[in-house]
Amino acid sequence: MGYSDFAFSIEGRDRWTSARAGIILTPHGEVKTPVFMPVGTQGVVKTLSHRELEDVGVPMMLSNTYHLYLRPGPEIVGRAGGLHKFIGWDRPILTDSGGYQIFSMATLNRVTEEGVTFQSHLDGSHHLFTPEKVMEIQHTLGADIVMPLDECVAYPTNHEYARQSSELTIRWAERCRVRFESLKAQNPDGSRAALFGIVQGSVYPNLREESAKRLVTMDFAGYAIGGLSVGEPKTAMYEVLWATLPLLPEDKPRYLMGLGYPEDLVDCVALGVDMFDCVIPTRNGRNGQVFTSKGRLVLKNARYAEDFSPIDPQCGCYACRNYSRAYIRHLFQVGETLALRLASLHNIHFFQGLMHQMREAIMEGSFEDWRESFKSAFRQHESLE
Amino acid sequence: MGYSDFAFSIEGRDRWTSARAGIILTPHGEVKTPVFMPVGTQGVVKTLSHRELEDVGVPMMLSNTYHLYLRPGPEIVGRAGGLHKFIGWDRPILTDSGGYQIFSMATLNRVTEEGVTFQSHLDGSHHLFTPEKVMEIQHTLGADIVMPLDECVAYPTNHEYARQSSELTIRWAERCRVRFESLKAQNPDGSRAALFGIVQGSVYPNLREESAKRLVTMDFAGYAIGGLSVGEPKTAMYEVLWATLPLLPEDKPRYLMGLGYPEDLVDCVALGVDMFDCVIPTRNGRNGQVFTSKGRLVLKNARYAEDFSPIDPQCGCYACRNYSRAYIRHLFQVGETLALRLASLHNIHFFQGLMHQMREAIMEGSFEDWRESFKSAFRQHESLE
Repeated sequence: MGYSDFAFSIEGRDRWTSARAGIILTPHGEVKTPVFMPVGTQGVVKTLSHRELEDVGVPMMLSNTYHLYLRPGPEIVGRAGGLHKFIGWDRPILTDSGGYQIFSMATLNRVTEEGVTFQSHLDGSHHLFTPEKVMEIQHTLGADIVMPLDECVAYPTNHEYARQSSELTIRWAERCRVRFESLKAQNPDGSRAALFGIVQGSVYPNLREESAKRLVTMDFAGYAIGGLSVGEPKTAMYEVLWATLPLLPEDKPRYLMGLGYPEDLVDCVALGVDMFDCVIPTRNGRNGQVFTSKGRLVLKNARYAEDFSPIDPQCGCYACRNYSRAYIRHLFQVGETLALRLASLHNIHFFQGLMHQMREAIMEGSFEDWRESFKSAFRQHESLE
Repeated sequence: MGYSDFAFSIEGRDRWTSARAGIILTPHGEVKTPVFMPVGTQGVVKTLSHRELEDVGVPMMLSNTYHLYLRPGPEIVGRAGGLHKFIGWDRPILTDSGGYQIFSMATLNRVTEEGVTFQSHLDGSHHLFTPEKVMEIQHTLGADIVMPLDECVAYPTNHEYARQSSELTIRWAERCRVRFESLKAQNPDGSRAALFGIVQGSVYPNLREESAKRLVTMDFAGYAIGGLSVGEPKTAMYEVLWATLPLLPEDKPRYLMGLGYPEDLVDCVALGVDMFDCVIPTRNGRNGQVFTSKGRLVLKNARYAEDFSPIDPQCGCYACRNYSRAYIRHLFQVGETLALRLASLHNIHFFQGLMHQMREAIMEGSFEDWRESFKSAFRQHESLE
């Protein structure tokens, strides 16, 4: 497939690992990789304004097709001129296919060759997502990177079910590709998005390999690895990554969906992953857990009641420059939403800083040294929590 | 009483009304009047960061002694170096006495000559606030303007109860003054606050007059009118103001507690009020009601689902420069807290703009013309809601 508005270039490679530093060009500008995308499920990264995201250097947001389809509905987003205009965010957006949410949130989902029927978690209304429909919805939303419908199987799943599901996901990917191309052809000026493929296959390396090989022949703009971080042991996740990543083309971005904790991001960058998304910085932040260069802190703990130092004295984010642990703990204790904002903002700043540091280290040829010193520092708070 | 760090000067007067434009000097800087103080009950104006308050020009915040006394407790705030340092806000703060909250929120309050005993609304624990204790708590909090303990009687209250209560409040005011002075004398460098008196007397003009006269003889730094906007008819409120305001010294700031809607702020400035505080911009904002130059809008209404214009096209606040009614309505519909933030921010910006416009009009000698055109414009949306 040709993409006039999408390109990926590699600017630097680590000598000892598979880590690389790149640039993704999208219709809404460049994104430096490795990149971490905060999750803006309903067109907003929970509790935060777009200005706050920009201030901490978020280059790209993920938004959820399932949620936006249900509310406000693609028609309203379309009439606003697309998702960027509707939500007032002019940096790149990636929309997922809704697959993950259908299998994790919707009730009574039923998978057939045609697609997946599900009931809304909001009002029980019935809906059918086909590969074609998911392309049409995302076409209306107008994201920069769109994802094909996939079945995200739970862990554990037996090999036979995982095999059938993975093959179905491959057939759906092909149907998505065809519909995506025809939408583009119908509207050559309007649709400038890029379509990625999603490797599935549960924890079975042979299924993952087959999925990766088949998708690569379809020539997507990038390749995602889905269905991980769903409860499998960490060793199983890394086995899948070791089996899959070498089969993905060097010159396309690789996106590990739904990860993760800082240590895992670092190790996955070392394996050659370029893109990540996860709710951890925001969800954990709302629960009072913050990330610092020395590890995690739980701000609600009584030990911080009179700790008048910032979350992380090394950090330059708005929360750390202006507020103390004691004050933010007070806000959590009394139920003030500014607490959720400050913790979320700090965490997203931390994740963006992490990606930035990794990129710099790759470019400077010091990634392995950096990784070692990061991990050693990041363990310091373990005894506290 | 002498206040080395507190002063009030009148910069301009309206020719036709009693409106005046002044400057209050406090230990944390100047405040131009008429001034509207947003309510930061627990040391935070709900949903908003201090930067956002500063961006919309909030010169001064009110915070609630009752809430801060219960959580985190004055000891922690004191060890942080006072409320300004604890919350990270370096503009002036006024703390109330807790009286209003005791009578509206606490359970089983019991008034005696000594003070008021009450049970915490949080855990039912028993507490006693005396006039002296309220001074000591506020001394520890370290606000710029502090308020004496008063009994805020409900509406309606019979004349005899109102009379007894008002007289008790006067005796409490004298005890507050004495304790306030002794705290200042003990700690001449530390305590730079100013103490106001609070006129009570329910809706009875003769009680209000008596209260005002007695308090004025005690020579407070400013005079508040409390116990209004508690359910009485608007005519009763204005009768109280007409009876009370002329008895308050010209050269001291006059503070109408707990008001109000924009139309009332305008009319009360015309009567010579200098200071206001109210939860309306934030509470109504969190419920989806926003104020515009043309009146109120309820953003949750279906009519805004596809209204891609800002809340107020005339407004320069962050919400109006970046987001549409349709998007903010979507955020309300899906329960995202950014909705509450944007509506609160816009409303506080609106209230600050209102005070600023009034001050400019007073200084330019055009207050009455301004008032008429404001009120006429502000009625335009009435048919919509």
